[in-house]
Amino acid sequence: MKINVAYGQLPPAFFFTEIGERVSAYAAAHPDQKLLRLGVGDVTGPLSPVVLEALRRAVDEQGRVETFHGYQPETGAAFMKAAVAAYYERRGVHLSPGEIFISSGAADDLGAMGNLFSIRARVLVAEPAYPAYVDTSRMAGRTVLSLMGNRENGFLPLPSEDLDADLVYLCSPNNPTGTAYTRRQLQRWVDWANARQAVIIFDAAYEAFVQDEDVPHSIYELPEAESCAIEICSLSKTAGFTGMRLGYTVVPKALVREGCSLHDMWKQDRTTRTNGVSYVLQRAGEAALSPEGFRQNRRAIAVCQENGRILAEALRKAGLWVTGGRNAPYLWLACPEGMSGWAFFDHLLREAQVVVTPGEGFGAGGANYVRLSCFGSPTDTAAAAQRLLTILKKGI
Amino acid sequence: MKINVAYGQLPPAFFFTEIGERVSAYAAAHPDQKLLRLGVGDVTGPLSPVVLEALRRAVDEQGRVETFHGYQPETGAAFMKAAVAAYYERRGVHLSPGEIFISSGAADDLGAMGNLFSIRARVLVAEPAYPAYVDTSRMAGRTVLSLMGNRENGFLPLPSEDLDADLVYLCSPNNPTGTAYTRRQLQRWVDWANARQAVIIFDAAYEAFVQDEDVPHSIYELPEAESCAIEICSLSKTAGFTGMRLGYTVVPKALVREGCSLHDMWKQDRTTRTNGVSYVLQRAGEAALSPEGFRQNRRAIAVCQENGRILAEALRKAGLWVTGGRNAPYLWLACPEGMSGWAFFDHLLREAQVVVTPGEGFGAGGANYVRLSCFGSPTDTAAAAQRLLTILKKGI
Repeated sequence: MKINVAYGQLPPAFFFTEIGERVSAYAAAHPDQKLLRLGVGDVTGPLSPVVLEALRRAVDEQGRVETFHGYQPETGAAFMKAAVAAYYERRGVHLSPGEIFISSGAADDLGAMGNLFSIRARVLVAEPAYPAYVDTSRMAGRTVLSLMGNRENGFLPLPSEDLDADLVYLCSPNNPTGTAYTRRQLQRWVDWANARQAVIIFDAAYEAFVQDEDVPHSIYELPEAESCAIEICSLSKTAGFTGMRLGYTVVPKALVREGCSLHDMWKQDRTTRTNGVSYVLQRAGEAALSPEGFRQNRRAIAVCQENGRILAEALRKAGLWVTGGRNAPYLWLACPEGMSGWAFFDHLLREAQVVVTPGEGFGAGGANYVRLSCFGSPTDTAAAAQRLLTILKKGI
Repeated sequence: MKINVAYGQLPPAFFFTEIGERVSAYAAAHPDQKLLRLGVGDVTGPLSPVVLEALRRAVDEQGRVETFHGYQPETGAAFMKAAVAAYYERRGVHLSPGEIFISSGAADDLGAMGNLFSIRARVLVAEPAYPAYVDTSRMAGRTVLSLMGNRENGFLPLPSEDLDADLVYLCSPNNPTGTAYTRRQLQRWVDWANARQAVIIFDAAYEAFVQDEDVPHSIYELPEAESCAIEICSLSKTAGFTGMRLGYTVVPKALVREGCSLHDMWKQDRTTRTNGVSYVLQRAGEAALSPEGFRQNRRAIAVCQENGRILAEALRKAGLWVTGGRNAPYLWLACPEGMSGWAFFDHLLREAQVVVTPGEGFGAGGANYVRLSCFGSPTDTAAAAQRLLTILKKGI
């Protein structure tokens, strides 16, 4: 046997293709109607001035032999690690720069992190979830257990005493539900993991959207998290870098399992499997995480937050159950009368020309929900809120 | 068992650290001596004008909402795939753009490609070799067999009838030996792989340095290669992108094993484990592979080729056995009188202030050799050639 047969066992990745095809077909049949796209979780830019300036300076450096940069250290340039450490420091989290690994984006590190674990490690995913947690685990041949978020637990499932797993994927603030664990809730996960020697892979990609004081930006704001958690983060949403590609991962030196330092293992993994991240992009990232970059990026984030408020208000006024939109750039909307996500998607496209994402794309627990994204322009978002209110008040 | 115990079984990655420490210690003790560094295989830049122009234009696009680019397709932007396809086309290799995957560099794809194969796949590495082939295979828990290059086979080992393996790593033009398979030699590997349903992972990172007509740039120049070979390439050496990070991988649609399309599997892998490659870097890559970019990049490559010629001439004049330097930016030099690579490294550092790389870093077969790189400036390289000739003629 030479092929990894676990690959063929996944369903084909038709989900976003199917959305695209339904939207294109509708648009072609109704060329006069303006579609309002609250589907894909992508930013609309532009990059902030301080980031553009850093990019231009770095490109200039690459144009002169005296200032040219070749290979960067595999785990990240010292200046970029220092910028990430300082960013955490401003939230009161003390990390040594050596614990920080610079990546080409959160997706890349999420995709490779599983390498550190045995194929017999039992994986737990809090669902609904970003599909890569389940898919990469299954592609490695691992058993995946789901812990379901639902309306009763506010889509913030918590561990019970009898819950058992080796590796847990948590995303807070959450994609797709837009919910976020409070400090107290997340501490329950940290305590559970430490008690069982489990490892939490904490996806903090949406931390920049947190508004509530009792919601942590980083799992390391909690006591004892450094002995059980890996944190994976990205500049995609923090600084509009989805098309630029840059992220960072923290593997604390205190994280040891079965006598192995996960920090040392990840360092070995990165130095073997990569040749580092672009110098130019790391200079852009350094600027984005600087106090001035942070200030400039707040504007785009504030627009998303206001979009979330407007959409949530309209949907509640229409009498639907909705969560999220406050600490994350997504809202999670219950379909009316037990409708499927796909049926509600079709209904909203046809009746309101609003594009959403069917909850089915995020696991079985998402089947009667749709996700709305807050990355649109304020004008489009306000128009979408108005259209949704009008058609939803009429009933389905 | 939750930890991947295969990680701990590798020796610590001390090799390049050890070189760095010995060089630093020598430099500190002899501040008046100028070291000539022919060690690390890194480029010294700068980027070519057409690449710089493309970078600046792309950065400008990211600064305006009307021209901003978010997420790129996971397997690469259409324009970059077209640029790679056209680059191959100019050598007479016809690929569909759909068979091309854009990467953050060859190292990243080499590091992830093993995922497609079972941990029971038997791996064969033609040694001496870039350490990642062996290390990533062993980190996945696979058995690794070595086929030794040596002076008798010109460091270009060929398959025999009774050789058996599922997965073979070949690098031509070769790092570290600087040798390159002819068309006829490489065809033997292709025929062997097709006959046994093995898969060749062909590392073509140094293809741009080929000077000899009978040495292929791409394995796909050979008949039947598309049914047995994956080609991984990089712009690191072709266009001075070691600090920029961009590469491409070809997985032909004709490559099917055990009823599974490796093309479809790699597509699934990339769409699950990555969110694509930077728009800005892909625009730079498009420019680098354009006819004008190619023309501009030839200058830096021609400098390396001339460096190789000068070094080889001096070393032969000194009476040592040396290969490479003609179709690759490396020379592979036999140590005098059965000396170890490390001992010769120390000798050259002390007596000639020339930094090389001990062959031990590339596997057991490299133990009595050192690697010299051609990426230095013409002045430094000429000075190094003169110093080497002088001290080596004296004998050790």
